[in-house]
Amino acid sequence: MAGSTFGSVFRIATWGESHGKAVGVTIDGCPAGLPLCEADIQEYLDRRKPGQSRFTTARKEGDEVEILSGVFEGQTTGTPITMVVWNRDQRSKDYSAIMNVYRPGHADYCFDQKYGFRDYRGGGRSSARETIARVAAGAVACKLLSHYGIAVTAYTKSIGIFEVDPERFDLAERDRNSLYMPDSVAAAEAAEYLERLIAEQDSAGGVVECVIHGVPAGVGEPVFDKLDARLAAAVMSIGAVKGFEIGDGFAAARACGSQNNDAFRVDESGNVVKETNHSGGILGGMSDGSDILLRAAFKPTPSIAKEQHTINRDGENVEISIHGRHDPVVVPRAVVVVEAMAALTVADLLLMNRCAKV
Amino acid sequence: MAGSTFGSVFRIATWGESHGKAVGVTIDGCPAGLPLCEADIQEYLDRRKPGQSRFTTARKEGDEVEILSGVFEGQTTGTPITMVVWNRDQRSKDYSAIMNVYRPGHADYCFDQKYGFRDYRGGGRSSARETIARVAAGAVACKLLSHYGIAVTAYTKSIGIFEVDPERFDLAERDRNSLYMPDSVAAAEAAEYLERLIAEQDSAGGVVECVIHGVPAGVGEPVFDKLDARLAAAVMSIGAVKGFEIGDGFAAARACGSQNNDAFRVDESGNVVKETNHSGGILGGMSDGSDILLRAAFKPTPSIAKEQHTINRDGENVEISIHGRHDPVVVPRAVVVVEAMAALTVADLLLMNRCAKV
Amino acid sequence: MAGSTFGSVFRIATWGESHGKAVGVTIDGCPAGLPLCEADIQEYLDRRKPGQSRFTTARKEGDEVEILSGVFEGQTTGTPITMVVWNRDQRSKDYSAIMNVYRPGHADYCFDQKYGFRDYRGGGRSSARETIARVAAGAVACKLLSHYGIAVTAYTKSIGIFEVDPERFDLAERDRNSLYMPDSVAAAEAAEYLERLIAEQDSAGGVVECVIHGVPAGVGEPVFDKLDARLAAAVMSIGAVKGFEIGDGFAAARACGSQNNDAFRVDESGNVVKETNHSGGILGGMSDGSDILLRAAFKPTPSIAKEQHTINRDGENVEISIHGRHDPVVVPRAVVVVEAMAALTVADLLLMNRCAKV
Amino acid sequence: MAGSTFGSVFRIATWGESHGKAVGVTIDGCPAGLPLCEADIQEYLDRRKPGQSRFTTARKEGDEVEILSGVFEGQTTGTPITMVVWNRDQRSKDYSAIMNVYRPGHADYCFDQKYGFRDYRGGGRSSARETIARVAAGAVACKLLSHYGIAVTAYTKSIGIFEVDPERFDLAERDRNSLYMPDSVAAAEAAEYLERLIAEQDSAGGVVECVIHGVPAGVGEPVFDKLDARLAAAVMSIGAVKGFEIGDGFAAARACGSQNNDAFRVDESGNVVKETNHSGGILGGMSDGSDILLRAAFKPTPSIAKEQHTINRDGENVEISIHGRHDPVVVPRAVVVVEAMAALTVADLLLMNRCAKV
Repeated sequence: MAGSTFGSVFRIATWGESHGKAVGVTIDGCPAGLPLCEADIQEYLDRRKPGQSRFTTARKEGDEVEILSGVFEGQTTGTPITMVVWNRDQRSKDYSAIMNVYRPGHADYCFDQKYGFRDYRGGGRSSARETIARVAAGAVACKLLSHYGIAVTAYTKSIGIFEVDPERFDLAERDRNSLYMPDSVAAAEAAEYLERLIAEQDSAGGVVECVIHGVPAGVGEPVFDKLDARLAAAVMSIGAVKGFEIGDGFAAARACGSQNNDAFRVDESGNVVKETNHSGGILGGMSDGSDILLRAAFKPTPSIAKEQHTINRDGENVEISIHGRHDPVVVPRAVVVVEAMAALTVADLLLMNRCAKV
Repeated sequence: MAGSTFGSVFRIATWGESHGKAVGVTIDGCPAGLPLCEADIQEYLDRRKPGQSRFTTARKEGDEVEILSGVFEGQTTGTPITMVVWNRDQRSKDYSAIMNVYRPGHADYCFDQKYGFRDYRGGGRSSARETIARVAAGAVACKLLSHYGIAVTAYTKSIGIFEVDPERFDLAERDRNSLYMPDSVAAAEAAEYLERLIAEQDSAGGVVECVIHGVPAGVGEPVFDKLDARLAAAVMSIGAVKGFEIGDGFAAARACGSQNNDAFRVDESGNVVKETNHSGGILGGMSDGSDILLRAAFKPTPSIAKEQHTINRDGENVEISIHGRHDPVVVPRAVVVVEAMAALTVADLLLMNRCAKV
Repeated sequence: MAGSTFGSVFRIATWGESHGKAVGVTIDGCPAGLPLCEADIQEYLDRRKPGQSRFTTARKEGDEVEILSGVFEGQTTGTPITMVVWNRDQRSKDYSAIMNVYRPGHADYCFDQKYGFRDYRGGGRSSARETIARVAAGAVACKLLSHYGIAVTAYTKSIGIFEVDPERFDLAERDRNSLYMPDSVAAAEAAEYLERLIAEQDSAGGVVECVIHGVPAGVGEPVFDKLDARLAAAVMSIGAVKGFEIGDGFAAARACGSQNNDAFRVDESGNVVKETNHSGGILGGMSDGSDILLRAAFKPTPSIAKEQHTINRDGENVEISIHGRHDPVVVPRAVVVVEAMAALTVADLLLMNRCAKV
Repeated sequence: MAGSTFGSVFRIATWGESHGKAVGVTIDGCPAGLPLCEADIQEYLDRRKPGQSRFTTARKEGDEVEILSGVFEGQTTGTPITMVVWNRDQRSKDYSAIMNVYRPGHADYCFDQKYGFRDYRGGGRSSARETIARVAAGAVACKLLSHYGIAVTAYTKSIGIFEVDPERFDLAERDRNSLYMPDSVAAAEAAEYLERLIAEQDSAGGVVECVIHGVPAGVGEPVFDKLDARLAAAVMSIGAVKGFEIGDGFAAARACGSQNNDAFRVDESGNVVKETNHSGGILGGMSDGSDILLRAAFKPTPSIAKEQHTINRDGENVEISIHGRHDPVVVPRAVVVVEAMAALTVADLLLMNRCAKV
């Protein structure tokens, strides 16, 4: 219950610190009979790997996954699947300077208040390396979802004020630029912005958007375990996320009902369709059969070289400049983490839905 | 697991349909020794009651709470507290027209897809009456929190595009206008806007903001049960909420790190303070000791008298005009629901935090 | 989490004290589409009702169930089902004598140690009336199981040393005697024994046996949520149960492997059968397709008129004689409670099993 | 939810198969600040190691534990603790004969029915190696409990019909004989009995008894999460356990109330004591301050060389003789597993109890 467990039916437990021996995850509740191998997972981990461009940290993390249990003769057995990624490039000394100082925008102070002390090496449990376990488990969830025709796709929607133009939206472009933006013009502008921030020893935030295609109507539970509530929890649990939207999100609050309601129609093939999708594919907490659309707002990377005010463990006012290898923006590497969390949530509620009817 | 259970330590289970006999809630996990009586709860229920102005439905719901268990000689006993509110003013006939038609923006279609049929009377389980149970349980959570010096306060931040001006913010004003806006000028503008929408048979959305004061640093669990993740799930589980923010929310995604980081300082009394509160009181998923600030975006009421396209159960395209007693905006009555959900979440994580250290 | 919640998929939350307004239960997770009415539940409640013979207390409890939610047009809707039984015959004064004294064999002392005080009226939350909620929920579980061809049947196996003789076993006889024993000879002997104990102001214990027929092979989860582990928790959670067995139970510990193993065979119709059933229908925590057989040992009723040593709240040694209406043996009324707990467990794991395979 | 997760506050998730790469466990919820190192755990693992006498299998399993996370500078950090034991001595070929045959008394048939196929190597997930993870986690729970003055001690009570004589009971003797029996005479008799069974290619069962000393009164939750119910689930979830008792257990069912009730007294030092302990330290599901006493009945090892009837995957009747390295009795090695499960349960409920009062 200390918070590293996620999901009800498709349940995962993650573990590991930035500078411990490894990070890993156990999935308790993946159905038996799903074809699965390490390459299925590695493909997702490679997308969150650092060192892929000058906007992500230069650390070579390797991050090769090893499956330790739950797969036999190429299929999941129904018993727990454990995956581990060993920590190799640790360089502990880089972090000794922050041992007694609370970095602004980081969890250092809160950890000490909660537990009395903390693993100060590289953020410990709240390091971005923690997301490796999410992505590994999410890759399994994606494989399971794809078995049922469901696809989860995220991309960078904006960095700073530079946003994808819907007119220029081209998903294929996403994998062509290091910012994971499906719009080459916006990507170029954002890159220029990041260069400027690097020069200024500063950092940027941004928005990730995610589309979940193929979820049948009726997934999600009325009341507290609404599909949108569970997606919100999943995505807001990613470090640095400060906002979450489904469909039109905050814009819906400014619209009027006649604009915001999506009309149902039966099309010529007899399928139920919606004329618009302001709801983002969810009504009353249940999927309505159209694409599920969500957005997550990421704050700027808190580790910046610019000097900042802060305090130390002894309660003294001090100044801090955080040097070392830090992404000037976390958004591009977070894209696959958002996919992972969305997939884990949908997989869980999809299985849960098997119990809806006699 | 069908979704009407919320919380881990301070756990609640709610039940009841709009046109069933009653709605209610059981709290399993309220500590023993808390003074509690029905008036404590009624005070909160009265704030969500309809019929208080022309912008809320004219139904007289009464909504008197009855405590059935868990309180003895004026104190909670540690055993389950059950509270019930009987449904009195049901008028079932009003709703018979929608029995076979799927209202746009409502859960009707999803319910039928999920369960094969639905209780079509007044929204059944997804009626706004479901929030009575949340508010009753939330009132108990608020009482518990106040015992520890924690106060939860929400208000209407905006209706449509009419927003509280920070310069004019006056919390006392909140309870003086029927829109629960802490700014009389914005409230007047919003009221005028609502009049116009009523005339046009349309409806509005808006934003609720909530401040949680007095939470000690360290509440919330790293990784999945982050305080912000759990608050997001809690608030997004309220019907009609489409967006959620902590602190600066989506604005943080446009800021740069040196703007968004909150500097720590020790003040002259030796207290740890933050120079700003962009984080909204949460860092790394744990409270940082400053005020927790969150916002929820509510979509416009989907029930409108304006004619809309939709389909019926037989898969035919039809038109629908929804008459009857519906709020042109749900936001004012939702204010206390947001408080309730925030309080339930904080109470749960505050208790959980008792197990953080040996 | 305070312990009044049971089950994962088919989850129940119970509440209510002996001398409060009512006792009740909410089922969150009953699949939609199950025909259900109050008579289905009343039939089970009537079997635990007191006042049916001189071996059960003379209180007239009525115990009529009312369904408050979750059933519409005669079917479960998939949303929470709440059932309530009002407390009518309370006679609070009977219990005032025990307010400050800890009854031996009762939870009084533990309640005060845990919570600082207790609802001392008639046992409060640990009264036998608490089982009403279990039986009501169990009746719904039985209805669900019968839909899948599963039947749960319990009976009194022994009272004191008087035990059903397997040679004379006749299930039809169970409902003909007030002790629920499927053997008229053993029932007569046990009745005589109870008369003697009543004269001596003493009480008896006994054993309930339960057979679950029709569970397909594979229900139950390997490792911690084994079917037998979950049945043990379910049955041991009934007040007064001190022992639990599956199949041969403790006798298996004295047998050797060649005696205890059940040989598998394919019979002439091609069905998999077992030549014996020492395992009690469970292997490796999963049902093996044969009848599931369990037993629960109930201690003697602790409330006896005989004088006993004890202490009071002030820490003084005192004597106590408990007068009032108490069953000299709880076993006959507990038979239906064991059925209920077994049914709730099997229903939960049967639904969970829907997620075992892709 | 697939059953490899145990506990609410002190929660563990185990994983691993007999012939996979490793077995392991993650503890999510161990409080911060507990001194912990690998030697603390190894001590417990060494007690379940095979190859210690001729009554346990000759495999050399080594079973060295490695802590991968959650401990920093010799203390638990409050974040997940992962421990792993690598599988070294696998000899997969030994098991190929049973690939298509269902061993009587084993879970083979049930696994195939549940999941469609199984990891047939050495029992896969239901191998006794699965208990390594329980013991590793249990060692941490024991360390935590000892911090609060609580000690968990188990021993072999009987093997076959050969039982420890209370008159000769000597706990120090337990660690002197390979059967973990605290009575040298009974141990010698049991050893002779086992020699006879080995000669006859047969196996034995037995009973483990466990004493938990130092639990303060009030631990355990009324109703479903009773301390005894949770202990029953914990212990019955160990493979091969068929019966469970608290205190007098089944004997209580034959006693009368005046014999079975434990009188409370205040002794000369002013402490509350009980004159007897028939209750086994639990009343109404809560600890009563005296020693908690439980017993578990283990069935005989199902793997025997004697020829047995069974069936194969193709539904044909066949004969089977199981050769290889199998303990003729599992009880001695199970002693530490019972301690582990008891400790995990008490640790969980002890922490949960921190939330009982305001």
